[in-house]
Amino acid sequence: MSSEGSKSTASRRKAEVKKLLHQLGRMIYEDIEKENFPEVTLASRSVSNIVYDERLRQYVLGPAKIKRSAHNIKHIRSFTQLIWLASFVNKLVETSKTSTLRDVFYSAQAYGVDFTDQSESDEIITDLEVLLSKAREDFNVYPEERSAIFGDLTIEYTVPGYEGKRLNLASHPDGYLIGPSLSTAEFVDTSAEMVLAVEKGGLFTRFVEENVHKRYKALIVDTAGQPPRSTRYMLRRLNTELKLPVYILADGDVYGEHIAMVIVSGSVGAAHLQDLTVPDAKWIGVWGTDIVKYRLPSDPLTEMDIKRIYELKKDPRYSKGIWLRELDMFLKIKRKSELEAFAKYGLTTIVDKYLPEKLEEAKSL
Amino acid sequence: MSSEGSKSTASRRKAEVKKLLHQLGRMIYEDIEKENFPEVTLASRSVSNIVYDERLRQYVLGPAKIKRSAHNIKHIRSFTQLIWLASFVNKLVETSKTSTLRDVFYSAQAYGVDFTDQSESDEIITDLEVLLSKAREDFNVYPEERSAIFGDLTIEYTVPGYEGKRLNLASHPDGYLIGPSLSTAEFVDTSAEMVLAVEKGGLFTRFVEENVHKRYKALIVDTAGQPPRSTRYMLRRLNTELKLPVYILADGDVYGEHIAMVIVSGSVGAAHLQDLTVPDAKWIGVWGTDIVKYRLPSDPLTEMDIKRIYELKKDPRYSKGIWLRELDMFLKIKRKSELEAFAKYGLTTIVDKYLPEKLEEAKSL
Repeated sequence: MSSEGSKSTASRRKAEVKKLLHQLGRMIYEDIEKENFPEVTLASRSVSNIVYDERLRQYVLGPAKIKRSAHNIKHIRSFTQLIWLASFVNKLVETSKTSTLRDVFYSAQAYGVDFTDQSESDEIITDLEVLLSKAREDFNVYPEERSAIFGDLTIEYTVPGYEGKRLNLASHPDGYLIGPSLSTAEFVDTSAEMVLAVEKGGLFTRFVEENVHKRYKALIVDTAGQPPRSTRYMLRRLNTELKLPVYILADGDVYGEHIAMVIVSGSVGAAHLQDLTVPDAKWIGVWGTDIVKYRLPSDPLTEMDIKRIYELKKDPRYSKGIWLRELDMFLKIKRKSELEAFAKYGLTTIVDKYLPEKLEEAKSL
Repeated sequence: MSSEGSKSTASRRKAEVKKLLHQLGRMIYEDIEKENFPEVTLASRSVSNIVYDERLRQYVLGPAKIKRSAHNIKHIRSFTQLIWLASFVNKLVETSKTSTLRDVFYSAQAYGVDFTDQSESDEIITDLEVLLSKAREDFNVYPEERSAIFGDLTIEYTVPGYEGKRLNLASHPDGYLIGPSLSTAEFVDTSAEMVLAVEKGGLFTRFVEENVHKRYKALIVDTAGQPPRSTRYMLRRLNTELKLPVYILADGDVYGEHIAMVIVSGSVGAAHLQDLTVPDAKWIGVWGTDIVKYRLPSDPLTEMDIKRIYELKKDPRYSKGIWLRELDMFLKIKRKSELEAFAKYGLTTIVDKYLPEKLEEAKSL
């Protein structure tokens, strides 16, 4: 299967971000030239303005806005920080350099821009995301966490020094880190027919060893726990650009279920972003019902587990289907299991028996 | 520079482990046939038996031994667990499969072998390491944590399905995960003249972007904090097989200094293993003196930091040279800095100015 229309994804995104940053800069300059106090208006991220959008199948920001004006002495600090950040990331994008969240915090000090701590600079980075409707990765700011991918997918790099170079992601069986260069690479060709997102490195390695990529024609993604955004973005691209269905395997507990939900419909914290979800991705396990059906070794739920289940039950996304059914099942059996628990029945049971049965079951989900 | 004599590292190690496991098995069988109670003797890991070896420049286990005998009712549980584990990993090695620590815990249940929790199975895995004088990675048991490598090094895989295939580790700029297949690969060729081990993924990416691998002819290793053993083993192989000097860059605090020390001379917990150290590796920063010299943004030491410094001062490895000098410096200035703090002076200052100055300084270390 070849990817059509994706050839220019990275360069198109880069051009968009540059255009938005330049528009922002021009607006500020024009205000100043007209002797107006410059200001920006952005969607409010207060809890009351985060609403679930049934059509997009994710949380989004509502209509409430906030204004940051150079005219208001209370706004000057955050306004200045925001404009400095815009100019800093503009330089990043132009020079094709990346930066971590932490780097941004320290870089500000060179310009006499004051952030009390990293949480303040992280906040301003989110403000800029909201203002531009772009994820920080689009303006080359990456977090540290990394996850990995493996399988028959040929990519073409767009980062400096590697432009036009191609790599097949089945060539290193320990997996490829999903960092800035993979995130911005174009997809050239794949024989894969599905994506399997797994929560743990151990299972990722098991899948590679057991040739899951060949036996199930799958790309395997290790989300390394709750997947970082670049991984969620990668999953979305695999789904939308290559039209590959995405299946999620996580531990059989409330946290595993939530990892799946975040892949499917995003996190409350990223309600201002709309290309980090895979609404059609399917959570195939480990369900509470699987713990019973496959007689998995299990542990009792802790009080914290139970508290977390009741929290999620208030979230509208968990109000129906398997999401609700399995929360209720965890509560009923009061047990949880890990992916590794299948090892009781042999190291390859999860690949030979569980995976095909769940993929079959997924057809009716 | 080409790697001589390393061609058979992986297969030689595999053959050694198999031989040791078979010897153990034969010993047990012979005891039983002779109607003796089988038993094993292994070095004690009690604190009093962990001593610093000046010649090996690492902690080692002393002469005290413990015996596990099927004759002693108190030993039967741990003796059985140990023998089961030996048979389990023998199967792993023979079928070229890997397993995580967690998998081992669950796998035991299939055989009616009881571990109360994973810490008990981890203990038995360490017992087997001590008994065979081999790291668990040698019998295909890997932890979950992964770190990464990048640079001009061509490797040849030895894992099933990839035997004989070669890969150059400069071909994916986000870096290659150091997992089971990279750990067991042979080194074929490299143009590198040094290894730079860095504590953080962000700096790893910065180094790749700034072409440190070309400008300094370096292989870059992201230890992802305290490096997992497979990474320490990789660093040692790069040092011993390719004769590359290893330089370590970590945060400018007591934890960063200790990361460097563990790479140099191992951890107390791995005192029974002797191929996880790089005694000639050099810790080049961030030193306490660098915080002052480079006027780095810094934070005050916490009480925990100070407590940790006094703990390390009791460790003989910290009793001299820069190790002692810098502990004292951290205490004196009562400040600590992160690698990212250099961003105050521009994102590339750490590469353009700090790194070459410290590499120069390292010549006299």
